[in-house]
Amino acid sequence: MKLDKTLYNIRKASKALSLITPNVINEMLLDLADILEENYDQILKANKQDLDRMDLNNPKYDRLLLTEQRIKSIASDLRNVANLPSSVGKVLQSITRPNGMQIEKVRVPFGVIGVIYEARPNVTIDVFSLCIKSGNCCILKGGSDASSSNKVLVSLIHKALEAQGLDSAYATLLSTDRKEVDQLLHADRYVDLIIPRGSQQLIEYVRTHATVPVIETGAGICHTYFDQDGDLEKGKAIITNAKTRRVSVCNALDCILIHQSRLEDLPSLTELLAEKKVIIHADPRSYKQLTGHYPTSLLEEADEEDFGTEYLSLQLSIKTVDNMEEALDHIDLYSSRHSEAIVSENSDRCDAFCAQVDAAAVYQNVSTAFTDGAQFGLGAEIGISTQKLHARGPMALDEITSYKWIVKGSGQIRNV
Amino acid sequence: MKLDKTLYNIRKASKALSLITPNVINEMLLDLADILEENYDQILKANKQDLDRMDLNNPKYDRLLLTEQRIKSIASDLRNVANLPSSVGKVLQSITRPNGMQIEKVRVPFGVIGVIYEARPNVTIDVFSLCIKSGNCCILKGGSDASSSNKVLVSLIHKALEAQGLDSAYATLLSTDRKEVDQLLHADRYVDLIIPRGSQQLIEYVRTHATVPVIETGAGICHTYFDQDGDLEKGKAIITNAKTRRVSVCNALDCILIHQSRLEDLPSLTELLAEKKVIIHADPRSYKQLTGHYPTSLLEEADEEDFGTEYLSLQLSIKTVDNMEEALDHIDLYSSRHSEAIVSENSDRCDAFCAQVDAAAVYQNVSTAFTDGAQFGLGAEIGISTQKLHARGPMALDEITSYKWIVKGSGQIRNV
Repeated sequence: MKLDKTLYNIRKASKALSLITPNVINEMLLDLADILEENYDQILKANKQDLDRMDLNNPKYDRLLLTEQRIKSIASDLRNVANLPSSVGKVLQSITRPNGMQIEKVRVPFGVIGVIYEARPNVTIDVFSLCIKSGNCCILKGGSDASSSNKVLVSLIHKALEAQGLDSAYATLLSTDRKEVDQLLHADRYVDLIIPRGSQQLIEYVRTHATVPVIETGAGICHTYFDQDGDLEKGKAIITNAKTRRVSVCNALDCILIHQSRLEDLPSLTELLAEKKVIIHADPRSYKQLTGHYPTSLLEEADEEDFGTEYLSLQLSIKTVDNMEEALDHIDLYSSRHSEAIVSENSDRCDAFCAQVDAAAVYQNVSTAFTDGAQFGLGAEIGISTQKLHARGPMALDEITSYKWIVKGSGQIRNV
Repeated sequence: MKLDKTLYNIRKASKALSLITPNVINEMLLDLADILEENYDQILKANKQDLDRMDLNNPKYDRLLLTEQRIKSIASDLRNVANLPSSVGKVLQSITRPNGMQIEKVRVPFGVIGVIYEARPNVTIDVFSLCIKSGNCCILKGGSDASSSNKVLVSLIHKALEAQGLDSAYATLLSTDRKEVDQLLHADRYVDLIIPRGSQQLIEYVRTHATVPVIETGAGICHTYFDQDGDLEKGKAIITNAKTRRVSVCNALDCILIHQSRLEDLPSLTELLAEKKVIIHADPRSYKQLTGHYPTSLLEEADEEDFGTEYLSLQLSIKTVDNMEEALDHIDLYSSRHSEAIVSENSDRCDAFCAQVDAAAVYQNVSTAFTDGAQFGLGAEIGISTQKLHARGPMALDEITSYKWIVKGSGQIRNV
């Protein structure tokens, strides 16, 4: 009930936000960058409270950790966002009808965006900056592990807003009470969009329970198909990069599909993976081929569950295919439609692969590691969408806007 | 379980569909138009079976009814769709990165679209033609009232598909078994999008239960604000047109907001409504003003429920406001964000209204009756979206597509 009133006020505030000039928003973002850098002590103290509650061996520990350097980097991202162009208000299409009506399709903010995320406190600042830059109020629901860090960060956001005379309702941190999340998921009247960022489990929960529209982000079960005409050196570099650059990211490689005619090259294709201590879950044919070449301690026989697994660790699976069709079928069955790649010098086969694979990003002789807003040249991103509705792949500023139709006339009525 | 297999086959078919050339699709649509006109008897016979099960006084009766003339009109719409351009495959954005990667954002079909609708059998052909024209397989779930008509129409669709050697899985009619709808709503693996068309109740059901992404269409609670500087003649024409052109459509007027300084003009503003026998639910100030002018038998005092009601009949409500802000607040509270209008000669106020009203279409001195794909010059439409995600307002061919990113390179890897 209390949240209902809060949501009502946020919706009201979002109307006022649509009238604030971009300059004021940009100034506020630059202020916030300074404020963060002036308040290391306060931020790191709160972050330490969070860290003290977490086991050092928890893989989330590093995500939760803030340092002076990391805060500098967050402040630098803020300055970048302040300098990006904003396209809110842009006329996307303009139509004059025979009866004289002038129709314009105009880019507008969504209004109110709820973002549900896990332990990374930098997401709090990221999400706020992208939402407000595109004219949206944000409702932030961070992981309870990061609650002290998030409280301090949002209090600094409010400080920056107030310094520009702006409403603190433009950024609202929900409590860690689960009931508030459920209210948020059903707040169709007040919230225009919900973006879950985090584990597959979190995304499933949101998708299953929300009645507010959702954009799914994140989960990436990614394949690279090494074709019969694949270049060995390119393949080696691409596979190693896609798997080992950073294992915790959604565009990391999970499964190599290898054409049976190239099995002989598999030991060479995977030799850099061995150096990086990558555990391989190999299907029978690739297992046989790797035996005696790949370190025994890192080689396992794949079971069915290995396909369709997002490892987020130094592991991958290998599946041998008789032809590209089999590779395409495997991808269609197991992929999360995030990022998929082919390594081949045969351009017809590359084209067919790119045309037929159903994923946000399809690569030909490039590492899947590039699925990222900044790497695509789109500026900052709020996440990688793995659905087809509204936005697909990296979601930059334009992707967190909507549009409306404005029709101007002089008394036109419709006769038919 | 059986449906699962069907859905799997449809998903498979959608891959093949993406390889069919537009010419073949267009030929098939033209064939289908001919086939419909050659099979009046069969269609009307099946339609009669449906009509015989329905009470003549049911308001759905007219929507269910097919006639030779209506079938001609459906065939004519098919020929129009065949002649529309299709933008599937179009490059929407092209980026060359400093490392030489070529990135293209390419328009692609969704893949498989489920459409759930009520008694109008013409929707069956409409939906099929728009889906296949944009490269999508469709799963049709029509109302049980129209089951015999739909069966015949889909059998004729299959005939047209087969005549071009195309897979009949491109159009699938679900049975009227409710369980199949629930399976469809949860078929995330096979279905890319669900569009409910029909009553608010149907839409709510789909929104609440679906885990597949949904685009809401249809419900329209529409206002027209007659401003202190409104032109009386324009206002009279616009209000009468928006209310009485067709009462069963979603862009029909439901509530007049009148500036208190123009109450004296209310009898004149509503005089054409009286001729059309429109029942007015008036708030106290407008009730007082209309008393003695508007026919007593058509004038009622409004209660709270009258605001926020989509009448779909010859009824509307009137609310007196002290200023435009009050009108904006009323709209924000009660509107379904479909179509909203202002009648005013004051251009500042018109601009402010258009900027601040949160709706798919906002009109200045134009009847809301124009919210329609054809009226906007967009070609045929599959519905009017009232949400902000993906598509807003009339959804034409482009709006039932998605995009993907295709990245071509020569072995690029990501270093940071």
